[in-house]
Amino acid sequence: MHKVNVALIGSGFMGKAHSLALSELSVLFPDCPLQPHKYVVVDVNEELAKTAAQNLGYEKWSTDWESVVSDPQVTLVDIVTPNDLHKPIAIAAARTGKHIFCEKPLSLNAQDSYQIYQEVEKAGVKHGMGFHYRKIPAIAYAKELIRQGKVGEVFAFRGFYLNDWAKDPNGPLSWRFQKAKAGSGVIGDQCTHAIDIARYLLGELEQVCAWVKTLIPERPLPTSVFDALGRKTEGRGKEMGKVDVDDACAILFEAQGGILGILEANRCASGRKNYLSFEINGSRGSIYFDWERNNELWYCSNDDRFEEHGYRRLLMGPGHPYGQYFWPIAGINIGYTEAVAINFYQMLQAIVNDTDCDPDFEDGWRIEEIVEAALRSHEEKRWVLCHAV
Amino acid sequence: MHKVNVALIGSGFMGKAHSLALSELSVLFPDCPLQPHKYVVVDVNEELAKTAAQNLGYEKWSTDWESVVSDPQVTLVDIVTPNDLHKPIAIAAARTGKHIFCEKPLSLNAQDSYQIYQEVEKAGVKHGMGFHYRKIPAIAYAKELIRQGKVGEVFAFRGFYLNDWAKDPNGPLSWRFQKAKAGSGVIGDQCTHAIDIARYLLGELEQVCAWVKTLIPERPLPTSVFDALGRKTEGRGKEMGKVDVDDACAILFEAQGGILGILEANRCASGRKNYLSFEINGSRGSIYFDWERNNELWYCSNDDRFEEHGYRRLLMGPGHPYGQYFWPIAGINIGYTEAVAINFYQMLQAIVNDTDCDPDFEDGWRIEEIVEAALRSHEEKRWVLCHAV
Amino acid sequence: MHKVNVALIGSGFMGKAHSLALSELSVLFPDCPLQPHKYVVVDVNEELAKTAAQNLGYEKWSTDWESVVSDPQVTLVDIVTPNDLHKPIAIAAARTGKHIFCEKPLSLNAQDSYQIYQEVEKAGVKHGMGFHYRKIPAIAYAKELIRQGKVGEVFAFRGFYLNDWAKDPNGPLSWRFQKAKAGSGVIGDQCTHAIDIARYLLGELEQVCAWVKTLIPERPLPTSVFDALGRKTEGRGKEMGKVDVDDACAILFEAQGGILGILEANRCASGRKNYLSFEINGSRGSIYFDWERNNELWYCSNDDRFEEHGYRRLLMGPGHPYGQYFWPIAGINIGYTEAVAINFYQMLQAIVNDTDCDPDFEDGWRIEEIVEAALRSHEEKRWVLCHAV
Amino acid sequence: MHKVNVALIGSGFMGKAHSLALSELSVLFPDCPLQPHKYVVVDVNEELAKTAAQNLGYEKWSTDWESVVSDPQVTLVDIVTPNDLHKPIAIAAARTGKHIFCEKPLSLNAQDSYQIYQEVEKAGVKHGMGFHYRKIPAIAYAKELIRQGKVGEVFAFRGFYLNDWAKDPNGPLSWRFQKAKAGSGVIGDQCTHAIDIARYLLGELEQVCAWVKTLIPERPLPTSVFDALGRKTEGRGKEMGKVDVDDACAILFEAQGGILGILEANRCASGRKNYLSFEINGSRGSIYFDWERNNELWYCSNDDRFEEHGYRRLLMGPGHPYGQYFWPIAGINIGYTEAVAINFYQMLQAIVNDTDCDPDFEDGWRIEEIVEAALRSHEEKRWVLCHAV
Repeated sequence: MHKVNVALIGSGFMGKAHSLALSELSVLFPDCPLQPHKYVVVDVNEELAKTAAQNLGYEKWSTDWESVVSDPQVTLVDIVTPNDLHKPIAIAAARTGKHIFCEKPLSLNAQDSYQIYQEVEKAGVKHGMGFHYRKIPAIAYAKELIRQGKVGEVFAFRGFYLNDWAKDPNGPLSWRFQKAKAGSGVIGDQCTHAIDIARYLLGELEQVCAWVKTLIPERPLPTSVFDALGRKTEGRGKEMGKVDVDDACAILFEAQGGILGILEANRCASGRKNYLSFEINGSRGSIYFDWERNNELWYCSNDDRFEEHGYRRLLMGPGHPYGQYFWPIAGINIGYTEAVAINFYQMLQAIVNDTDCDPDFEDGWRIEEIVEAALRSHEEKRWVLCHAV
Repeated sequence: MHKVNVALIGSGFMGKAHSLALSELSVLFPDCPLQPHKYVVVDVNEELAKTAAQNLGYEKWSTDWESVVSDPQVTLVDIVTPNDLHKPIAIAAARTGKHIFCEKPLSLNAQDSYQIYQEVEKAGVKHGMGFHYRKIPAIAYAKELIRQGKVGEVFAFRGFYLNDWAKDPNGPLSWRFQKAKAGSGVIGDQCTHAIDIARYLLGELEQVCAWVKTLIPERPLPTSVFDALGRKTEGRGKEMGKVDVDDACAILFEAQGGILGILEANRCASGRKNYLSFEINGSRGSIYFDWERNNELWYCSNDDRFEEHGYRRLLMGPGHPYGQYFWPIAGINIGYTEAVAINFYQMLQAIVNDTDCDPDFEDGWRIEEIVEAALRSHEEKRWVLCHAV
Repeated sequence: MHKVNVALIGSGFMGKAHSLALSELSVLFPDCPLQPHKYVVVDVNEELAKTAAQNLGYEKWSTDWESVVSDPQVTLVDIVTPNDLHKPIAIAAARTGKHIFCEKPLSLNAQDSYQIYQEVEKAGVKHGMGFHYRKIPAIAYAKELIRQGKVGEVFAFRGFYLNDWAKDPNGPLSWRFQKAKAGSGVIGDQCTHAIDIARYLLGELEQVCAWVKTLIPERPLPTSVFDALGRKTEGRGKEMGKVDVDDACAILFEAQGGILGILEANRCASGRKNYLSFEINGSRGSIYFDWERNNELWYCSNDDRFEEHGYRRLLMGPGHPYGQYFWPIAGINIGYTEAVAINFYQMLQAIVNDTDCDPDFEDGWRIEEIVEAALRSHEEKRWVLCHAV
Repeated sequence: MHKVNVALIGSGFMGKAHSLALSELSVLFPDCPLQPHKYVVVDVNEELAKTAAQNLGYEKWSTDWESVVSDPQVTLVDIVTPNDLHKPIAIAAARTGKHIFCEKPLSLNAQDSYQIYQEVEKAGVKHGMGFHYRKIPAIAYAKELIRQGKVGEVFAFRGFYLNDWAKDPNGPLSWRFQKAKAGSGVIGDQCTHAIDIARYLLGELEQVCAWVKTLIPERPLPTSVFDALGRKTEGRGKEMGKVDVDDACAILFEAQGGILGILEANRCASGRKNYLSFEINGSRGSIYFDWERNNELWYCSNDDRFEEHGYRRLLMGPGHPYGQYFWPIAGINIGYTEAVAINFYQMLQAIVNDTDCDPDFEDGWRIEEIVEAALRSHEEKRWVLCHAV
């Protein structure tokens, strides 16, 4: 088994998630042809980097991502920095021939993302995107049911990502509420997971019509550093600043083949904590999923007799995708770490087999095109084609 | 207590529902100032009318709605005929000074509905609409929570009416699949209930953007009479006919005050049986409801402590609207009949107190305007204002 | 169609429920061979009786149950009085040849109930028991699935009746908390519904082992009249009285054929409002039901493929028992009144067809034997046979 | 940070689970005072042991547990062998001064378990038990709510462990169906988790009354090795063998302070996959949990206003126990691995702080006493005291 030296660039919440996944990976997937090694972690100063190396279990640390990216010992660059650094790191890594795993979004806009995508393709490196949620057994099984024809012709799709972490108007004006740093609000953040799942299950989205809205237009200016989600309320200032990105969005879409659907995201939806959910209705059956119960998939088959027709609750287990890697009976359950681990595992397989990652940077770019089309649709109050190419 | 002689015009599924409600009404609501009397029922031929009188408990029967409408003994005309007869009956009843209870939709289009509305207003009679679903305690309590400010500023609304009675492509081409008879498909049928609830809870809808879709474009021509929902498959012909109305629709909307939301309806959504559902997220809390569990309301309050914050499941009982009329503990449950009974009860109160019915024909007309705006939006692929006036 | 003159003895909560059911009955069931007529209502004083006649829609009223019971115009005596009057009224009614519908429990103890049962059998009148809950489509369909062999050999049964109406220690010491008036506590009240369902689905219970417990040992003495559930807290006194019956019970049982199960009831189970629930696991499948969602039945079939095996949620509709009498699509929903109406409807059929009511007074007696065996088991800390005969 | 060299004895399903937990541990808990090192793994032959070392990530392998247990490099012996080996390994490990983490059950009977417990106490080593389920945030938060008095006086407890992995009568007669190898059936296996949770939340169980039952009395003799749950059906023989342990059990119990409750376990409960569930009702509120949705806790407070009183669904997140170690918003979810990791983490803290593990071998022994009391109760058809001491 060959080792893959991983360079983790960034050590926040997602850095921890990735490191957990890497720690689990070879135990979960004994057939994995490559074994990831936590080689080096990078953060902005020595204290953060040192602590990260110790806490997350990396052999080395650094404050200089450029030298790390060009280190010949490094095989895979794992980007979990703030969004504005994705582009320079990814391009530098591609140019030194590193495989790249990048957290979503790929960059701050579709144009930059297209450029990154062109670079990695030219460099011939593998590129995986951090849309981890869809990698779990329940969603993989949804895809499998669709592939088997059990949904039939798709009649409708509705996808949501609702949570309420931003509902407090006293929550400070972190970078996620500023266009200059985040590009957009919930539409470019949570909503992209819903878009990712829609594309995964249905195929490309071709046109959209959307509204977006800023629900809490002003927030206290922060007076100190905050965590990744801007939820640390201590130290918020008395002055208020303007939120110039959306807190909520809703999208009508048409996917390839004329499939119609809706998508919605909201980060002030009180009572919804991590409601990444979808339902797909088809001529032969339906599927429903909600991440808050990530080990369940609801399935309804039109083959059922009339009086026994109804949604059934399937608890994921050995009969479902990746079942052999997890627990011997259904309902013992996996969590978020395993979603990330499956994504990494499949990327390692893609490296060995020289196949495309799924999702890859092309997906990252396409999703940003959709976000931008939706924002344009909101401005122009009409349907907008998603993709120029 | 005064008697109100009711003339029921039509004796299908809704005729039975109304008659059940009338039978229950005075027992349920002993404080009702008027007591309905099932005076006469009308249907298209003697056999149907006689049977209806016997089965539904009316004193008399008739095959001639015109004479019944002008019968001085009749106080209230209750219209449950096919949609195309609503207009002539309602106008005739108004002109002879009868109060009118009309099943939805008010007529085949907004223009006719406006005319009917003008007639009843001119005549000074009371006019109630059969949007019964929203009359139940759970939805009345949702309204009450909003009125108390417990939801706060409305951040988002999503409403659905999903069912699957039309999912079988071998279901015959009944009138509900024909534009000439039904006006539109699911958007003018199920979706109007979702629209009604949105308007009830939020206020007027001002503009919409929608898609509609025919999911099953051809169905077998029927060779005999079918039931109200076209579900009687015996006797369907071998020839196929074209469905020229929508089976599915999705609507982005803006309500008064800038509230944004979505609405969706689908009659081929396998696994959903009577999923008339809504969720409203606001600055102080959220509410969720699903008719399939019509005795529950889910409520989340931002006053709850962070670690105890979550949707709570409220089972309707004596503490909720109409609680004194139903059962002494929560969870004993009411069904659809009670929704209709509450609607009638409130109309009788409106007659006594000379107040407006809620909903009334103005609501019936406004909802049809919204449906037509949505259909126009679909044609023109843009946002459309709902109301001319 | 023949009329059945009904004499309602008692006009509280259950009197209203029965009257609603009678009002609905002939509209719901047009094929009903007998039509109930609300002939006379009896209560303890003229004011109550008069008001009841007016509110509940009876032709006449009386304060003298004995003369009513012997009135030759009366065909069916419907007993909804406090429990201690059941015996004298039922025996008097039997001796004058009236059919009898009696609310549960049949009497204050098994011995009295046996005597009543002997009297009605000797008189040859029909006798129906007010265990209404089990009459709804969902539970009737559970029985049907069992009959079809879809559950197979019964592996386990668990039944519950949990609610929380008695959880407030300041709730007054109404008759339901006093052994002299109520016989027992929750075990003889709510728990008998769970026992009834167990017997209905499994057959006779043969032996039991139980614990019972008084959870709130003292309550304020009431200083005025209270409602049927003793929940009216106004007017409670400052002195405390002793609760000498159980608030909670749990029962291990063995039913005929060696089936094992558990039953539990609790009236102080905070958060449970009307949780009359059961689950039955068998060699071929399982069934789950909860009255709080009385229009749903959950069913799991071992014929399902391994990866599609799971409980499915069936919403009751036209394909299920009594489906033709209710709504044309599933999920429109019925409530408690319809349960009572079905029970009455079947009793009227039993009168016409000269068959036994189901449940009848034999069931009422047998259930009290089981309650007494459970109480004896608690005293003696061992398993006890339920039935002497 | 000091390293703890772990010797894993056994490499089946639980060996994988423990190894995953150890891999995650230091990343999850950066404040962990000791860092586990996967030092050596033992299995019955060279091939299994070598493969385990490679797949599970241990530095060394061995086929000789005795030499491993006495290896001075080993600090912690982690026992995940078949049950009959727990005793000799644990005693040997104690005698060489190793800390011990032992999967449940501690041994084949209470007497042996008591002996083991005496040995580890005498040796002064730390001893942790593998009742991992209760270590998750949801159950820890349930305990916290109880500790804060939010449940008040406990009115009732019901606990379940239902699953259906053994429902197929063609599933082979693995060791779990044989008394000689397993001691008992579901009562000593799944049910002990329910007992563990009951004791954790309520305190000691003092007396019990139970039934047990073998649901599938004969199964095909296996003709080859099967997996840990005996679910590998290939290779089952044509001859049948007798199952001499229980597949189902139900227990009435009295816990300290007079708390009454019920417990039930069943491994043929079709549709239940991993339903480790409990509900606790008290004078101030209630709690409900179900492992199949292991990231949720349902809580009902009697402080809520009457009309807003109902179970609320809490999704575990940063406000709950261990919240700082997992994800920044609720509903991202953890799985089974994290339960095991928390158990290990707390054991490492117990080693550093010289406190007792929770649960420890005393719990393991006490739980077996309860199992044996329940089995004796079944034999003698009466209540039985659980503990001699």
